[in-house]
Amino acid sequence: MANVSVGIIGGTGYTGVELLRLLSAHPHVVVKCITSRSEAGKAVTEIYPSLSGACDLVFEDPEAADLHACDVIFSAAPNGVAMQHAPGLLNAGCRVVDLSADFRLRDVAVWEKWYGMTHACPDLLGDSVYGLPELHREQIRSARLLANPGCYPTAVQLGFLPLLENGLVETESLIADAKSGVSGAGRSASVGILFSEVSDSFKAYGVPGHRHLPEIRQGLEDICGGNVELVFTPHLLPMIRGIHATLYARLNSAGAELSVDELTDLYTSRYQDEPFVDIMPPESHPDTRSVRGSNHCRIAVHRPQGGRTVTVLAVEDNLVKGAAGQAVQNMNLMAGLPETAGLEAIALVP
Amino acid sequence: MANVSVGIIGGTGYTGVELLRLLSAHPHVVVKCITSRSEAGKAVTEIYPSLSGACDLVFEDPEAADLHACDVIFSAAPNGVAMQHAPGLLNAGCRVVDLSADFRLRDVAVWEKWYGMTHACPDLLGDSVYGLPELHREQIRSARLLANPGCYPTAVQLGFLPLLENGLVETESLIADAKSGVSGAGRSASVGILFSEVSDSFKAYGVPGHRHLPEIRQGLEDICGGNVELVFTPHLLPMIRGIHATLYARLNSAGAELSVDELTDLYTSRYQDEPFVDIMPPESHPDTRSVRGSNHCRIAVHRPQGGRTVTVLAVEDNLVKGAAGQAVQNMNLMAGLPETAGLEAIALVP
Amino acid sequence: MANVSVGIIGGTGYTGVELLRLLSAHPHVVVKCITSRSEAGKAVTEIYPSLSGACDLVFEDPEAADLHACDVIFSAAPNGVAMQHAPGLLNAGCRVVDLSADFRLRDVAVWEKWYGMTHACPDLLGDSVYGLPELHREQIRSARLLANPGCYPTAVQLGFLPLLENGLVETESLIADAKSGVSGAGRSASVGILFSEVSDSFKAYGVPGHRHLPEIRQGLEDICGGNVELVFTPHLLPMIRGIHATLYARLNSAGAELSVDELTDLYTSRYQDEPFVDIMPPESHPDTRSVRGSNHCRIAVHRPQGGRTVTVLAVEDNLVKGAAGQAVQNMNLMAGLPETAGLEAIALVP
Amino acid sequence: MANVSVGIIGGTGYTGVELLRLLSAHPHVVVKCITSRSEAGKAVTEIYPSLSGACDLVFEDPEAADLHACDVIFSAAPNGVAMQHAPGLLNAGCRVVDLSADFRLRDVAVWEKWYGMTHACPDLLGDSVYGLPELHREQIRSARLLANPGCYPTAVQLGFLPLLENGLVETESLIADAKSGVSGAGRSASVGILFSEVSDSFKAYGVPGHRHLPEIRQGLEDICGGNVELVFTPHLLPMIRGIHATLYARLNSAGAELSVDELTDLYTSRYQDEPFVDIMPPESHPDTRSVRGSNHCRIAVHRPQGGRTVTVLAVEDNLVKGAAGQAVQNMNLMAGLPETAGLEAIALVP
Repeated sequence: MANVSVGIIGGTGYTGVELLRLLSAHPHVVVKCITSRSEAGKAVTEIYPSLSGACDLVFEDPEAADLHACDVIFSAAPNGVAMQHAPGLLNAGCRVVDLSADFRLRDVAVWEKWYGMTHACPDLLGDSVYGLPELHREQIRSARLLANPGCYPTAVQLGFLPLLENGLVETESLIADAKSGVSGAGRSASVGILFSEVSDSFKAYGVPGHRHLPEIRQGLEDICGGNVELVFTPHLLPMIRGIHATLYARLNSAGAELSVDELTDLYTSRYQDEPFVDIMPPESHPDTRSVRGSNHCRIAVHRPQGGRTVTVLAVEDNLVKGAAGQAVQNMNLMAGLPETAGLEAIALVP
Repeated sequence: MANVSVGIIGGTGYTGVELLRLLSAHPHVVVKCITSRSEAGKAVTEIYPSLSGACDLVFEDPEAADLHACDVIFSAAPNGVAMQHAPGLLNAGCRVVDLSADFRLRDVAVWEKWYGMTHACPDLLGDSVYGLPELHREQIRSARLLANPGCYPTAVQLGFLPLLENGLVETESLIADAKSGVSGAGRSASVGILFSEVSDSFKAYGVPGHRHLPEIRQGLEDICGGNVELVFTPHLLPMIRGIHATLYARLNSAGAELSVDELTDLYTSRYQDEPFVDIMPPESHPDTRSVRGSNHCRIAVHRPQGGRTVTVLAVEDNLVKGAAGQAVQNMNLMAGLPETAGLEAIALVP
Repeated sequence: MANVSVGIIGGTGYTGVELLRLLSAHPHVVVKCITSRSEAGKAVTEIYPSLSGACDLVFEDPEAADLHACDVIFSAAPNGVAMQHAPGLLNAGCRVVDLSADFRLRDVAVWEKWYGMTHACPDLLGDSVYGLPELHREQIRSARLLANPGCYPTAVQLGFLPLLENGLVETESLIADAKSGVSGAGRSASVGILFSEVSDSFKAYGVPGHRHLPEIRQGLEDICGGNVELVFTPHLLPMIRGIHATLYARLNSAGAELSVDELTDLYTSRYQDEPFVDIMPPESHPDTRSVRGSNHCRIAVHRPQGGRTVTVLAVEDNLVKGAAGQAVQNMNLMAGLPETAGLEAIALVP
Repeated sequence: MANVSVGIIGGTGYTGVELLRLLSAHPHVVVKCITSRSEAGKAVTEIYPSLSGACDLVFEDPEAADLHACDVIFSAAPNGVAMQHAPGLLNAGCRVVDLSADFRLRDVAVWEKWYGMTHACPDLLGDSVYGLPELHREQIRSARLLANPGCYPTAVQLGFLPLLENGLVETESLIADAKSGVSGAGRSASVGILFSEVSDSFKAYGVPGHRHLPEIRQGLEDICGGNVELVFTPHLLPMIRGIHATLYARLNSAGAELSVDELTDLYTSRYQDEPFVDIMPPESHPDTRSVRGSNHCRIAVHRPQGGRTVTVLAVEDNLVKGAAGQAVQNMNLMAGLPETAGLEAIALVP
C-alpha cells in the first residue's frame, strides 16, 4: 500500500494535536506539513512535548506551506477558515477533510444564521459528503470534500439511528440531553473554560439554541425521511474528554411492542459490521472513560419501568470518534486503506 | 430564644460532618452528642480536622450516648437504622429529623420493595412529615418525626412544582435527567466511587430503577393530585458536591399559551417568599458551584425554540439543600427559630 | 461598634469575589462600592450569582466610584494598579489594604527587577506595613497602607518562623517545595490555566525564579536577622483552592538536640494565641481541604528517620489566609474590630 | 520472531488492566491466561469494557489456570503473593516478572521490617534482578526472576542517576519531594482514596517512613557505591495517573563547577541511547500529562539562582514506566524482542 501524504491546517488546537497523535502512529500515512499562523517557526514538540520522538515537524505559516503537494488536507482550524482554503485545495487536486462546521449543513441560509457569517463557497455545499461512515460509507469513499461531523452530532445520530430507521418512535418529541468534556470547547483563551471556573462544577449551556442542533436535525431527518423535532440540551462536564448523550424518545405503537432486549437486538444487528460502534448488553451503563482515547462509540438501550419512553445512552471520546479519529476513519475510506488503520489503540483506563 | 439541644446519630458520614459544620456555627443550637459505632472514643477533630476549634465532641457509642436528653435528634445513619431508634426517641419526648429514607414513603409495601428490608415501625409512616418546607411548612412546624427528603427528590420536586400546581404540563411523560456529585454516594469504602474510577469520567446509573424514583413520584402526585409517569435518569458527576436536574415536560394546551418569560414569572411568584429558592432570569444556566456549601436551590426555565417542551434547570448542593441544610431548615421550623438561622453562608466560588 | 465602610478596587477577579463573600457576611462592615473597568454597570450578581441575596452592588467605573468616602479601600487589582491609586486615597484619609505585590518589598530596585515596571511611588514603600499578623500585629493596628502578603509567602513564612526565631536550622540551605491550586493564577483568560491544560496533570513552574521568592526571602531574613538562602519551587495543582508548602531545613547542632515532639511543642507555644494557626500533633499530614474556605493555616512538623532534616507541612486556602481572608484579618486589626470577625466560617469538607 | 506466551496473576487491579492494554496490542505476545480469585469466571470485558474487541479472556481461578504453560508470568497481585508462586513457576521453567515489592530488596530483614511479613523464599532474593533497564540492561536479558521497580523508585533513581554516577553531589542530604496520582494506591476499596476524600485536595503521607524509601536508598547506594541519606516525601495528587518527582541535591565542589547547561548535557549524554528517557532543555518544566499513557520518563535540570542546590524534575506515568510499561520493557529484554515493542503509543494530550 502506498503511503498517503497528509497536511494539517490549524494544528495547534486540540483536534490538531489529536490528529498528530493518531497520524504519527498510522502505518500508511506520512504527515508532510502542519500550519499555524500564531506558532509558525516553532517545533511541534515545543508546544506538545508529548509528541517528542514521534513528530519532528515545525509549524509553518499557511501561506508558505506546500499544502498542494499533499494527497489529503485535514483542516482543524476554527469555523470559517476551511471555506477559504477549500476551493484552491480542491482545484490543486487535494482531497479535503474539514473538521470544522463549514461544510456540514446543506442549507446555506441555515448555516449563515447559526454561524453568523457569509459562506465563502456555498456552491461547494452540495458537493461535500457528510462523514458519518455508519450512514454514508460508500459516498465517503469517493468524496473529494468531506465534512467531518461535530462531536455531539456523532453521538446523538448513532444513538437514535436504529430507532429512526425502523420507525419505532415519535419523531416530534425527541430529547438529547448531552454532556461534554471541556476539550470540546477548544484551546482558545477564554474565562469560561478556565480550570477554576469549570472544575468541581456543572452546568447546561446553549439551551435556547446550540450550533449543533441544525446539524443533528438535518442528520436525523435524513435518516427517517421526515420532519423531526428535537430538544437538545448540552452540558459542560468537569473533565477533559468524553461525551455522554442521554437520549429519550417516545415509542410509537410499533415500538411499544418491543422489549428492551428486542430493542437492543435491533441495535446489535444494525451495527454488527461496524468496527467502531459497540452495543452493550440491555440496561448497561457505559462510562466515558471506557472510550477515552479510542475511536469507539459505545451504546446501551433502556426502557425504564417498561414504559413508553426508550432511553439510549451513548458515549464517545469527543476528540476521537467525535473529531480527529472519525476524520482519520474517513480518510482511510477515501484512500482505500483499511478502515481501522491507525485507530486500533485501546482506551486508557483508569 | 432558648438554645435547642441536639444529638446526631451516625455522624461519621458526609451528612454527619455537614450537620456538624452547620450546627457548630448555628446561633441557637448546642450539639450535645454525636454517635458512631466504628469511631466511638475518637475526637471528632481526629476524623475531621476541619472542625478543630469549632467542635470538641467525642464520638460516642450509640448505646452509651444520652440521646434522650436532647430536644432534637438528627439521624444521619444509613437506611434502616433510624427506624430502629425512632420509637424509643419519640417516646422519650425527643423530636426526630431523619436524613435517611426510612420514613419518606407512605406505602410500606413500596418502601420494602425498593429498600429490600422489612420496615421496623410501619405504623409511624403515617405520622411522619415529609420535610420539603416549600410544600409542607405548616405541618413541619409541629412534626415530631420528620422525613428529610432525598437529594434528587428535592431538586426534582422544586423544579417541577409550579408547572404541576398550575396544571400546565402532560403528567404522563415527565423526564428528570439528573446529575449528582460523588458525595451523594456517601463515605463508605466501595470500588465504584474510588477517585480513579470516577474522576475524568461520566456515566448514568440506576436507569432501570433508582430508589429515589418512588419518592419523587409520590411527591409529584401529591402536588398535582393525580397519576404521574416519570423517567428518572441519575448520572454520576466527577465532582464532590452538587446536583443538576435537567427536567423536561410537554406543555399541555394551557401551558403552550405561555412564553418562557411568563413561565419564569410563574416560578418567581410561586417562590417569592421562599428564602432558599432563587429563580434566575429566563433562559439562564445555573451552575452547581453557585450553590456550593449553601442551602439554596437555583432554578431557570427554558422553552427551547418555542416548542412544546419546557426545560427546567435546577441546581442545589446535595449535602446542604439536598440533606443537612434542609434538615437544619426543618429543625428551625420545628423549634420556632428563624427559618434561615445557621444557613446564611454564601456559596464558595470559585 | 460602628460599622466600617469599605470599597473594593478591581473586584471581578477571584480575590475580589472572595472579599465580597467574606465582607458581605461581616458583622461590622458595609461594602459601599466595588469597581471594575471591564464590567462597569453590571450587577455583581450577574457575574457571580452565588452572591445573589447577599450583595446588591453594581460594578462601578473606578473614576466614577466615590472611593474617598470609604474608611478602608481594598485593592484587588493586578500588580501595578494600587501604586497608582494609593497616594490619592491616603491623602483623602482612606486606609488602604493592597492585595497585590505593589508595596510588599522594601527595596525598590528588587521590586522593579521582578515586576518589570517602574514603581509609581517608591517613597511609600517605607510607610507600608507588611500584613502578616503573626509577626507584625502591633504595626498593623496603626497602618495606613498595608501590604497584604502573597499566598506562597504566607504559608512559607508561617512554616519556617519558629525554627528561624529560635535559631535551630542552617539558613543557607532552606527549601520550600510549594504546590498551589489554580485559582492562585487569577481569573484572566490564558491558555496555560484552561481546564483542559491543567486538569489531570501536574508540573512545576518558575523554578529558575518566581516573584514570590524575594518576598519570602525578605520575610525570612527579617525573622532570623541574617542572610537566608532559599530554593523555592512552585507547582501547579489540578484543584481550585489550596496551598501546600513542604518545607525542608537542616537542623544545626542546637536544633539536632530536639525530637520531633519537642520541635512540635515549640510550634504549639509560638502560635498558642494565634486564632488562625493550628499546630497538629507531631508527624501529622494536613490536607488542603481541611482549610478550604477558612482563614486557617494548619501546620505539622516531621523529623523523618530522626535525621538532620526537619520537614514542615503547612496548608492554607490561597484565597483566604493567602489573600482575602488575611486582608480582612488585617482590616479588623486596623479598625479595632475583633481579629476574627467575619472569619469564623468552618472549612467546607468534603 | 516467535510469539511469547504470557500469563498474568492478579489481573483485576490497575496494573493488571494496564498490562492487558499494553500486551493486547503487543505485536509479539499472546496473553494465554489471567487469574483473579474474586472475579474468576467473569469475562475481562465485563469488568473492563474498554478492552472489548481487544481481549476475550475470562478471569480464571489461580489454582485452575495453566500458568506453567506460559513463557512469562507477570505477577500483578498485592505484596506477599508473588513470593508464594515464584518457586513453583521458576521450577516449571517459567520466567517471572513481579510487579509487587516481593523481590526488590536484597536484605530480607529490611524487607520484613517494612512489609510486615515473613518472606516466603528469602533464598530467591539473591537471584532476582532489579528491573531498571537504564542501569541493569544486561542482567535483565538473562533474568529468570525479575523484580519490577516501584513507581516512585523509578522516577527518583532515573532523576538522581547522572549526578550520583559522576560524584557531583553530597550524598548525605538528598531530598525527593514526590507527588503521585491516586492510581498508585491501587483499586482496593478504601475510604482514603474515595473521590470525595481526594478530589480538590492535596496532602503528604508517609512522611515519617514509606515502603519505597529503602528501595530507593538501595538503588541510589548501588549507583554511587556508598552511603546515602535521603528524605523522601510522598504526596497524593488529585489526579489519576502520573508521578512528579522534585529532587534536590547539594552540589559538591566538583558539581559546583558546572552550569545548568553543563549539568543538562551530562543528563543528555547519559541517556542518549535510552528509548524511554527524554532530557528536556535546561530550565524546562515537564508536566505529567506529557507522559500520560506512555512509557517515557521526562527529566529537566535546574540550578536555581545559580546556587549550590541542583533541582531535578522527573515525570512518568506511574502505571506505565512506573509499573506495567516497564514490566513489558523488561519482558522484551528477557525475550530478546525489540525493547520498545508494544510500547510505542504516544501520550494522550489533552
